[in-house]
Amino acid sequence: MSAVTYEHIKTCKQSGARLGKVHTPHGTFETPIFMPVGTLATVKTMSPEDLLGMNAQIILSNTYHLWLRPGEDIIKEAGGLHQFMNWHRPILTDSGGFQVFSLSDLRNITEEGVHFRNHLSGEKLFLSPEKAMRIQNDLGPDIMMAFDECPPYPAEHAYMKASVERTSRWAERCLEGHQRPQDQGLFGIIQGGEYEDLRRQSAEDLVSLDFPGYAIGGLSVGEPKDVMNQVLEFTTPFLPENKPRYLMGVGTADSLIDGAIRGIDMFDCVLPTRIARNGTLMTSEGRLVVRNAKFARDFRPLDENCDCYVCQNHSRAYIRHLIKANETLGLRLCSYHNLYFLLDLMEKVRGAIREDRLLDFREEFFEQYGFNKPNAKNF
Amino acid sequence: MSAVTYEHIKTCKQSGARLGKVHTPHGTFETPIFMPVGTLATVKTMSPEDLLGMNAQIILSNTYHLWLRPGEDIIKEAGGLHQFMNWHRPILTDSGGFQVFSLSDLRNITEEGVHFRNHLSGEKLFLSPEKAMRIQNDLGPDIMMAFDECPPYPAEHAYMKASVERTSRWAERCLEGHQRPQDQGLFGIIQGGEYEDLRRQSAEDLVSLDFPGYAIGGLSVGEPKDVMNQVLEFTTPFLPENKPRYLMGVGTADSLIDGAIRGIDMFDCVLPTRIARNGTLMTSEGRLVVRNAKFARDFRPLDENCDCYVCQNHSRAYIRHLIKANETLGLRLCSYHNLYFLLDLMEKVRGAIREDRLLDFREEFFEQYGFNKPNAKNF
Ligand SMILES: [Zn+2]
Ligand SMILES: [Zn+2]
Repeated sequence: MSAVTYEHIKTCKQSGARLGKVHTPHGTFETPIFMPVGTLATVKTMSPEDLLGMNAQIILSNTYHLWLRPGEDIIKEAGGLHQFMNWHRPILTDSGGFQVFSLSDLRNITEEGVHFRNHLSGEKLFLSPEKAMRIQNDLGPDIMMAFDECPPYPAEHAYMKASVERTSRWAERCLEGHQRPQDQGLFGIIQGGEYEDLRRQSAEDLVSLDFPGYAIGGLSVGEPKDVMNQVLEFTTPFLPENKPRYLMGVGTADSLIDGAIRGIDMFDCVLPTRIARNGTLMTSEGRLVVRNAKFARDFRPLDENCDCYVCQNHSRAYIRHLIKANETLGLRLCSYHNLYFLLDLMEKVRGAIREDRLLDFREEFFEQYGFNKPNAKNF
Repeated sequence: MSAVTYEHIKTCKQSGARLGKVHTPHGTFETPIFMPVGTLATVKTMSPEDLLGMNAQIILSNTYHLWLRPGEDIIKEAGGLHQFMNWHRPILTDSGGFQVFSLSDLRNITEEGVHFRNHLSGEKLFLSPEKAMRIQNDLGPDIMMAFDECPPYPAEHAYMKASVERTSRWAERCLEGHQRPQDQGLFGIIQGGEYEDLRRQSAEDLVSLDFPGYAIGGLSVGEPKDVMNQVLEFTTPFLPENKPRYLMGVGTADSLIDGAIRGIDMFDCVLPTRIARNGTLMTSEGRLVVRNAKFARDFRPLDENCDCYVCQNHSRAYIRHLIKANETLGLRLCSYHNLYFLLDLMEKVRGAIREDRLLDFREEFFEQYGFNKPNAKNF
């Protein structure tokens, strides 16, 4: 049996969204779920206890970054990533592919793999399906990702077709290279851009390889929101019902809900922590930029409808003061609230699926957040 | 009755150190005590819960910094500093005097007060005894400090004598300006540099004004350690037994112990959090610079004899990785450990006083820390 399995609980009669559980060697998480991103073996400004306090059920970490710092050998020696960072719930790592294609200007893609330069030191590096597997086997996450080519957006059909076919060949090599299938579930990544025939080809190729889960890659890379939703609509039907589905790099509240409605189970994004570090919050009534002068004497919580630790204990005025004074507690409080907001949103999404009313929930949430306004901000 | 009172429990038969309790409107703290410094209404990188977790019994905050950011009016409107920062145990604020004299190059001292420039904006500002009282009354700490002149070290006897006399006149104005003596205890500050006659004069002047507590200022400003100890030895006998004694700006382990032996009850310093941000730790076996390469694969805790949260949960290798990668969790873990180390040290000092063996404890501690080695680092 695979190290990672999906248990389907029910499908929302109103929206078609899936409620489920994913079982891993470090425990079970509920889906649909949002995964906080801990790039360098730490979710920026958060301790493991903070993550437990907001009930994060699974976190993501980045293979590329850990490979460079501190090195997967050190993490292996520590007993794996869970031990190294003292987080004992599930962890997913990406394959490094996305960073190779997004952080490095100088890269050379061959059938064997990708030659590129370290974004920190300029040093020449090489990553291949086999190497991405070996590194992730050393890191020891519950879920690892196949090494894929991440094409630019937009890309021509011919380029994308060649890329999809290479990603499928690399996926096979990933399965062969994976040394710990009993401990770690390897997910395949569907590519194909906005082309339905290529998404179908990619899905069919990977489904035939029988991965324990599938990600949809190459979205949230600059395309309009309706294109993303359309791609999800025509891609998820190609995926098996009994495997989890992960939409990579998506973390705006509207996209999480719209993704769940289109059958997605797992999401991750740096957005909540990245905007937090600039004093920008997601609240039930929309975006709030707590740096703004108008909050200097506002002693209400960041979000009056939020029951997170931050909103129960600290005021906008205090947090604004901390952010303005460059005090790290300010970043920490904003990060905590934003992560809690998305985790709590997904709990509400799961509740709405259970009650067969996710489309109603979407309308209510969008209305209160302000997503229905003309020129609405998307986070 | 004063808002702040001292309860003497016992004197160490071996060393003469005092064991006591200080009662304040926000509760009681044990002495000798170390007070973490929360300059801008936050102990850098720590949450109030972190401070409770390490059993910080009182913290210090800086009037000068809060006056500039966010402004004492905002803190007053929040309900005072305790409410503003969500810390409900005792708080002490300094008077701003030290910052006026240390941060501002352009200052003009008159009998009325000090004209100087904002160290952030260059704006012209004025601070006087009355103004320092009004600001601290607005901030609302349990213990406030008199506004004193902080002379440079070294200073001529004649300069120092004039300064001490001005500080005494200012102390009277502080007592007159203090509007909330029923809620806040105001401590006088003994100055006089290394001159015994001036320390005596300063102490006599201030003791005659009957403050509820006394600080010894003008030490730890660059003088050799034996000068500091000597000044303490001839100054504390001038102070009443029934009032707490606070040595300002001292936070090395050796000086805390040596201060307690000389009759000091309260200490504060930014040292533990400042060095933490550079990855430098105080441990039972001396200074440890966790940034160093030799700790890359060291999976032991920062201090094998420490039972703090950090040492129970995280390794040197992980913390080194965080510090090298500029992750704020690294600063936070180092800050937590260092603060815990000094709080725990003072708990051990109190235990040794209770058992009349503080001199023995000093010897054991100095030996293990390495303070007895030639060329020992003093932290
Ligand atoms: Zn909140
Ligand atoms: Zn410790």
